[in-house]
Amino acid sequence: MNTRFSLTITATDGAARRGLISMARGDIRTPAFMPVGTAATVKAMMPENVRASGADILLGNTYHLMLRPGAERLARLGGLHDFMDWQRPILTDSGGYQVMSLSRLRQLTEDGVAFQSHIDGSRHMLSPERSIEIQNMLGADIVMVLDECTPWPAARDRCAESMALSMRWAARSRAAFDADQGQSTRAALFGIVQGGMYEDLRRQSVAALCDIGFDGYAIGGLAVGEGQETMFSVLDYCAPALPGTQPRYLMGVGKPDDIVGAVLRGVDMFDCVLPTRSGRNGQAFTARGTVNIKNARHRDDPRPLEEGCPCPACDRFSRAYLHHLVRAGEILGAMLMTWHNLTFYQRLMADLREAIGDRRLGAFASAFTAGYRGGDIEPL
Amino acid sequence: MNTRFSLTITATDGAARRGLISMARGDIRTPAFMPVGTAATVKAMMPENVRASGADILLGNTYHLMLRPGAERLARLGGLHDFMDWQRPILTDSGGYQVMSLSRLRQLTEDGVAFQSHIDGSRHMLSPERSIEIQNMLGADIVMVLDECTPWPAARDRCAESMALSMRWAARSRAAFDADQGQSTRAALFGIVQGGMYEDLRRQSVAALCDIGFDGYAIGGLAVGEGQETMFSVLDYCAPALPGTQPRYLMGVGKPDDIVGAVLRGVDMFDCVLPTRSGRNGQAFTARGTVNIKNARHRDDPRPLEEGCPCPACDRFSRAYLHHLVRAGEILGAMLMTWHNLTFYQRLMADLREAIGDRRLGAFASAFTAGYRGGDIEPL
Repeated sequence: MNTRFSLTITATDGAARRGLISMARGDIRTPAFMPVGTAATVKAMMPENVRASGADILLGNTYHLMLRPGAERLARLGGLHDFMDWQRPILTDSGGYQVMSLSRLRQLTEDGVAFQSHIDGSRHMLSPERSIEIQNMLGADIVMVLDECTPWPAARDRCAESMALSMRWAARSRAAFDADQGQSTRAALFGIVQGGMYEDLRRQSVAALCDIGFDGYAIGGLAVGEGQETMFSVLDYCAPALPGTQPRYLMGVGKPDDIVGAVLRGVDMFDCVLPTRSGRNGQAFTARGTVNIKNARHRDDPRPLEEGCPCPACDRFSRAYLHHLVRAGEILGAMLMTWHNLTFYQRLMADLREAIGDRRLGAFASAFTAGYRGGDIEPL
Repeated sequence: MNTRFSLTITATDGAARRGLISMARGDIRTPAFMPVGTAATVKAMMPENVRASGADILLGNTYHLMLRPGAERLARLGGLHDFMDWQRPILTDSGGYQVMSLSRLRQLTEDGVAFQSHIDGSRHMLSPERSIEIQNMLGADIVMVLDECTPWPAARDRCAESMALSMRWAARSRAAFDADQGQSTRAALFGIVQGGMYEDLRRQSVAALCDIGFDGYAIGGLAVGEGQETMFSVLDYCAPALPGTQPRYLMGVGKPDDIVGAVLRGVDMFDCVLPTRSGRNGQAFTARGTVNIKNARHRDDPRPLEEGCPCPACDRFSRAYLHHLVRAGEILGAMLMTWHNLTFYQRLMADLREAIGDRRLGAFASAFTAGYRGGDIEPL
């Protein structure tokens, strides 16, 4: 264990763990949900309100930031924390996932991925070494290795080959990270398990990463269309195979019930665009499931979106007002809906942490899932 | 004078006045700038931040609100103040201006204006009586008479005819307002001077309105393309012709130097979409003129938009960050630029009030105008 990064497990309940990650820029309570701040902003939110919703750490997207405003520019401007005025920990992804999903004219080789920007067509190269360098220039507190997120569905051979490439890239990422004395004494490095939906490949990937050694271990290549049941079955063998002393991060997940199920299986960290993206589209998350605020049933409804929620959307405004704002395309609609959704996600994480501490996570999860599937309050 | 509405002049400097309007929902420091909350929101702003920028009163647009969410609906939901959580005074316009500029298939008769909604094509009628009724349902604190905003340029005959119609409508508006005991004991009613750029017509309009009697007097039909010099020449004779004991409101104005010039000529109240609309388009107002934050010169600039400005855009972020946000189309860019612009406008109003109190408004206005024309800080 080192002082720049340590996980203390403070409670367990079955496979689930509650803990505290200590880092120079602040502690992270786990299980943790990391709001996504794609382009140096959690969309439609002031950073202090993201913090007040309960977020201890944000995720930044290397792909977006390397293209705009650019990694070298961000370094000259003093890094991502000052740029966006978020002084707590930031985890950056490697950029690999979005290169494959957003960029043009991709060429993947052993060396890395050459691609053209989806914004202006400019040419770039992302290798394990360049990804680590960029994340260093951004000033990330938690750095991710470059991997290939294997598409789904994929045949066993394709998954094996892709996983093996990711493991070679993980070793190169580790070497590049360690070679930078500033970065390696300041930040933490996470490896990423791949292997598709094949248990033996996943176990090989876990073993390969543990041989290299990382501060934390992410599970990648899930939430790519395989469905919740398959995802949970991968977590059932993947999470316990990972070192118990280090954080486990399920990338890109997910819906509230995905998160509850993954916490039950021993996952500590999550990120997802759902609360922010859905919020901008008029979809709210509540303890009674999702609510599409654009529906005509809310037009005359003076009740809050979610009774008892402390966010300003619920505390000060009616469903009728939110309906009006979102229907009219008002920016304040996106602001308030995002604020609510981030608050909902962070309250869920706090509830999960509390339930683990009280060793009643199973009962909490059952009650949550039943409520979540129970449907919205009756129309007036 | 009655207790629901009173203006106390606390200082004068030449034609300029500093004062305090007392109303049940709060005081309005004059000269006052009213941010525009078109569709029950000052776009991209939380109401408490509009208030913190220095706004004592908002303007709401009857045309937009009657179409969406609808006046009857707003009344059922408890009125505009609760709906948008703004508990201080609200002035609503009559809807007439935007019916003529936004709606479809308009038919103007002695009775009023029939039109189709620009949103869904639904048919509506706006008469003086209906406008007053709608503003009552919204819960407006300051109600405006229905008028015809005479287009510019217009021949004398057209201006005379239009002004005469507006004066007949003003009398009908007054009667409708007085007939509602709730409204007339709770709210204030303002008349609107018309008459184009013709001094004799303007004077006739002032006389007609004073015969009817109002709580305040607006000057309409300006800032319609006539230019600052012409506008100021109308104010030169129009403002002093109005009763000194009641507020004078210059509708839809304007740019910072328009406001300074109008205050010098005795105007007390202003509204304009410029700070909010320009903010969303990436244009900032500063003491050194306008800044287009999208320009490449700001891309690497670590300096604040405006040194010494207390708004969060200037206090916590760089020009480089604002440039990045606006270029990337981020909602936070619209939020921060709007916040700055509203802060700039309200600081200007506070400076004007202080200069009047110190009887140094002429010197302040000269220095402001010189600075405003001086251009932005040098690029790095």
